[in-house]
Amino acid sequence: MKHKTFENMQCPLARGLERVGDWWNILILRDAFYGLKRFDEFQESLGIATSTLTRRLDDMVASGMLERRLYCERPPRHEYVVTDLARDFRPVMLAMLAWGNRHFAPEGRSVELTDADTGVALDPIVVDRTTGRPLTRVKVVAGPAAGDALRRRFARMDRVA
Amino acid sequence: MKHKTFENMQCPLARGLERVGDWWNILILRDAFYGLKRFDEFQESLGIATSTLTRRLDDMVASGMLERRLYCERPPRHEYVVTDLARDFRPVMLAMLAWGNRHFAPEGRSVELTDADTGVALDPIVVDRTTGRPLTRVKVVAGPAAGDALRRRFARMDRVA
Repeated sequence: MKHKTFENMQCPLARGLERVGDWWNILILRDAFYGLKRFDEFQESLGIATSTLTRRLDDMVASGMLERRLYCERPPRHEYVVTDLARDFRPVMLAMLAWGNRHFAPEGRSVELTDADTGVALDPIVVDRTTGRPLTRVKVVAGPAAGDALRRRFARMDRVA
Repeated sequence: MKHKTFENMQCPLARGLERVGDWWNILILRDAFYGLKRFDEFQESLGIATSTLTRRLDDMVASGMLERRLYCERPPRHEYVVTDLARDFRPVMLAMLAWGNRHFAPEGRSVELTDADTGVALDPIVVDRTTGRPLTRVKVVAGPAAGDALRRRFARMDRVA
C-alpha cells in the first residue's frame, strides 16, 4: 500500500483516503457503527490477525477515527468508540454499501438499510445539499487555497467528467 | 493490503471495497473522471512507478472499473476510459472528497465542486432516495440473501449506530 504517500497531496480526496487508511479500517468502522467496541469483538467479527488488528486500531486512534477508552482499571481494558470525524464519514460508507448492493449482490441482498425508527427501507444517494439534485454534471475546479501545481493541473484538465 | 480476503464476505461494503481495490485506483479513477486517458497522463499526474501503474490499470480493467481501448494500431497504443460501473461509483468519491474538504483542508479549499452548466458551488451529501432526508438514523439489517453466519451476526449486533 502506497497510500502513505498521499498525505502531501493537496487533493481533499487523497487526504481523505490517507486519513481513512487501510481497507480493514473501514470494516472495523462498520463494526464499530454496529456497536462493537472491544478488541475481541472486532477480532471475532473480522477474522483478523491479532497483530494486524492491534496495528489498525492504533492507526485509527492516531488518525482520529476512533477514541480509545478505559472501561476497566484492573486489569486495564480498553474499548474503541467512533469519533465525530468517523460519524461524519459514515454516509460515505453507506453510499459505498449501496453501490455494492446494486452491483455485487447477484444472489440478492444480504444486507439492507432501514430507518431505525420506522423500519422503512433506505436507499442512499448522493445529492447536492442545496438543490437536492443528484450530482450528474459536476466540474471540479481549483479552490482558493490551490497551489500552483494544482492550478496548472486543472488548467490542463479543463474538462467535464 | 489484506483486501483480497474480502471477496468471500457477504457484506456489500466489503465486496465494494474489494472491487475498488487499492487506494491508488481511486486516484486513477479521479483522474479518469477529469478526462485523463493515457498511461503517461496518469503517470505524470500521480507520480506513480511504471510497474505500479501497470498493475493498477490491469487490475481496474479486470474488475470492470476501466475499459482499455486501442486508439492507435501502429504502434499499438491503449487508452483507459471509465465504465458505467465506475461512473456509478463517482458520487461516493465526491462524498469522500467533500468529507476531506470539511476536515482536512485547514489552509482552505484547494479543490471545489461546481455545477458544470451553471458554475454554482455543489456540496455533496448522502440522503435517502425517496425522502431526500439525510441518513441519520440508519439500521443495518439482514437481507433476503443473508446466510446463517450473517444472520447470527446481526442478531448479536442488534443495535442502532
